[in-house]
Amino acid sequence: MGKKKTPKGIGVKKEENFSEWYSELVKKAELADLRYNVKGFVCYRPWAAITIKKMFDLFEECLERKGHLPIVMPSLIPESNFKKEAEHVEGFTPEVFWVTEAGESEKFEEKLALRPTSETAIYPMYSYWIRSYNDLPFKRYQAGQVWRYEGKSTRPFLRAREFHWIEAHNVFASKKEALNQVKEDMETTKEMLTDEFGLSFIFFERPQWDKFSGAESTYAADALMDSGRVIQLPSTHFIGQGFAKVFDVKFKDKDGKEKYGYITCYGPAISRIFGAMIAIHGDDQGLVLPFKISPLQVVVVPIVYDEKKKEILSKAEKIGEMLSYSYRVKVDERDDISPGEKFNIWEMKGVPFRIEIGPKDLENNQAVIVRRYDGKKFFVGVKELEGKLRKLSEAYTKELRELHQQRFENLIEKCHSIDEVKKAINRGKIACAGFCSIDHDGEKCAEVIEKETGGKVRGCRLDKEDISFDKCIVCGKKAHKTVYIAKDY
Amino acid sequence: MGKKKTPKGIGVKKEENFSEWYSELVKKAELADLRYNVKGFVCYRPWAAITIKKMFDLFEECLERKGHLPIVMPSLIPESNFKKEAEHVEGFTPEVFWVTEAGESEKFEEKLALRPTSETAIYPMYSYWIRSYNDLPFKRYQAGQVWRYEGKSTRPFLRAREFHWIEAHNVFASKKEALNQVKEDMETTKEMLTDEFGLSFIFFERPQWDKFSGAESTYAADALMDSGRVIQLPSTHFIGQGFAKVFDVKFKDKDGKEKYGYITCYGPAISRIFGAMIAIHGDDQGLVLPFKISPLQVVVVPIVYDEKKKEILSKAEKIGEMLSYSYRVKVDERDDISPGEKFNIWEMKGVPFRIEIGPKDLENNQAVIVRRYDGKKFFVGVKELEGKLRKLSEAYTKELRELHQQRFENLIEKCHSIDEVKKAINRGKIACAGFCSIDHDGEKCAEVIEKETGGKVRGCRLDKEDISFDKCIVCGKKAHKTVYIAKDY
Repeated sequence: MGKKKTPKGIGVKKEENFSEWYSELVKKAELADLRYNVKGFVCYRPWAAITIKKMFDLFEECLERKGHLPIVMPSLIPESNFKKEAEHVEGFTPEVFWVTEAGESEKFEEKLALRPTSETAIYPMYSYWIRSYNDLPFKRYQAGQVWRYEGKSTRPFLRAREFHWIEAHNVFASKKEALNQVKEDMETTKEMLTDEFGLSFIFFERPQWDKFSGAESTYAADALMDSGRVIQLPSTHFIGQGFAKVFDVKFKDKDGKEKYGYITCYGPAISRIFGAMIAIHGDDQGLVLPFKISPLQVVVVPIVYDEKKKEILSKAEKIGEMLSYSYRVKVDERDDISPGEKFNIWEMKGVPFRIEIGPKDLENNQAVIVRRYDGKKFFVGVKELEGKLRKLSEAYTKELRELHQQRFENLIEKCHSIDEVKKAINRGKIACAGFCSIDHDGEKCAEVIEKETGGKVRGCRLDKEDISFDKCIVCGKKAHKTVYIAKDY
Repeated sequence: MGKKKTPKGIGVKKEENFSEWYSELVKKAELADLRYNVKGFVCYRPWAAITIKKMFDLFEECLERKGHLPIVMPSLIPESNFKKEAEHVEGFTPEVFWVTEAGESEKFEEKLALRPTSETAIYPMYSYWIRSYNDLPFKRYQAGQVWRYEGKSTRPFLRAREFHWIEAHNVFASKKEALNQVKEDMETTKEMLTDEFGLSFIFFERPQWDKFSGAESTYAADALMDSGRVIQLPSTHFIGQGFAKVFDVKFKDKDGKEKYGYITCYGPAISRIFGAMIAIHGDDQGLVLPFKISPLQVVVVPIVYDEKKKEILSKAEKIGEMLSYSYRVKVDERDDISPGEKFNIWEMKGVPFRIEIGPKDLENNQAVIVRRYDGKKFFVGVKELEGKLRKLSEAYTKELRELHQQRFENLIEKCHSIDEVKKAINRGKIACAGFCSIDHDGEKCAEVIEKETGGKVRGCRLDKEDISFDKCIVCGKKAHKTVYIAKDY
């Protein structure tokens, strides 16, 4: 009779096999479909598409509040633009999809890159749009997708050949203002990832050998995945004047002189943050979504038996209507599946709250609120329902964040030898050690660490630098830096 | 001292040279920049990007209210998908940009189309997602951009090689339901274009030779541009079962039998509607934007002289703050440009209302509301300001629509010979004439009309069919249809 199959949680435990757990979650919660016939490209199904859209909306609102304006740029970039910045072309060329022809067989004289990132499309236009110090700071963002011919194996949302992001590109009159923008971007990252999506992370200054191609320095948020690896979430880059000189991004200063601007860029990959979020918050029942961005926030499930069917349904509808003024609510009145199956479905989808109403509840004029992330039940009088739900919902995302934060605690382990680093990493820890330099001088030592331990030098922590070491853990020279080492995703 | 140049209206009159007027408007209102170095690709600047985003939001809300859910599909389509539907490939191949390689020089075995439209990406997935009659109607939409290697000369927003649209793709169990969806799409077009964007249009059933490649029939809204030509705005297509058979979009019906679905698709090209909107509503002072989608709805301009500067600025700020709870408001306090220059700037940008407050107004505790589309002034006591503005703003878009509607009136001219058609079209009219058939039989007669008059057969009107003719204007056979003929953009 065309009845849908009910997902009853994930068939494999998250802590036993993260990778399989993730794949099954993506499938059972109907987030993405991997059967599209181009390798590394997936389809986002409605539940994911709606959530990701809400994430974009929050990010865009936040950026606009901070003075960024939207622009929409072409997604094709001529090869010649692309080649102008030497480091940039070297870093990105291996990842570029090229458009070389059109129609039946018309070959282009110059091939066009499907943008892997938009610096080389945007900055030539900035040279037209920025004239004087009056135009600065010049803050713009674009929301859209980029394409990268990714060599590593792909995984829906976390790494794909087409992904959806925001890129903000800003120009300032001074280095100081540009570096302040980097701080603002870090604050934005916290407002979004921590406050709205419930994610904990550490902000690092990346070593020189691991920075964005063409930037002077890169700052990036690493969040801990439950697979014991870290994942890079938004990064922000102090580009300096390099691109400005190449693309002629100049302004006439107050003193009448023409000067090059200082550029920063910030690139939150929304689809990747979505992936990290489902990986981090999800559990063996399925998805767990932060309150504000969940497509549905409350689902009302009537527990119907024949006797009081009408009254219960009517009560459920009334509750649903009452709550619908404040929340995105669905009353699940289907009668071809059982209440238990409905519980499974909405738990799989990660809806933050379920409200059950059965014959006993009707008798006592009460309802049961069930909180998704821990399954805790709250018995509430119908009159108190709205107030209770407000309290629970306001705390929900914060509580998710605290759960994630707890897993960070005691996670960082001071190490004094490569062997200690290796052991720490293999136990899913983040190693912390003395290091000679995160300038190019230190690259050789970093290579040793990666080869010996499988971990990568993530850089220097930006929020605090409270641990000090005497010697570089590899070469034994003076430790100018304390670095953090982890496997990455 | 880096002072901005003030645009003082458009240098060429709209009615004298529409084409130049349009180009200058796009430039002076800072909507798009045509200097991007790939032919046919333009950059949308913030004022356009914000407006277009609001248009997308309205359309998406409307589609979701009518039961569509969002999906996000890959933008690359394998050539083999593309080739499966014969008419479709024939119609679209000349317009496809092809991705043929990646990285340094890795050539693909199969080339990938940058989607010119997504049927051949989406329907193969529908064959996985649709299983039974329970899944129907299946209504999905995608918001994003498409690429077409356009042969005609391009013009920002109106015709470009990358444009931004929504495509809704729906599957139904019966032809009747599918045709009802076509009606719903026409209603959606009215709700958006007429009610929100102030545009008048006529819905036509297109002749068979002018339908969407792969559809059974195409219905499209033609709006009148002020250049005396019509422009096609959203179109909706009854696809029938053709694509369903090719891509195996089947469902198990109540009777247990497998059946092919009936497909419809609807494609409002938002960036094109934006272009038509600025072309239709704009005037010689610049842009005129409908109220709901204008980035700013009200601008407050203090008329400051030295004497009462402080009081006037403080009053302007108070008014600005009061209105900001209901509207998007800016108080333009710049003191390096004159009030007159500010008027020019915000008129150029199409902000619906300007509020002026000067020394006399301060004295009388009043303000002046100036309505953008006709420049009419309203002197209002400060206490009545909010109420008056509410009334004016609620009527604003409707009044824009009426102005556009008036230009349609008496526009349609009954013609009984090809010569009459030619004369009517040359006077900027829409000709209406008897015609043998809009099936393929009539194509030869349509070719004659196009060759002789420069006008195109737009099809049969869907809202009414009140005019009847005896004979086809070309071949003289019985007139089964009344068709409308106009130059198109």
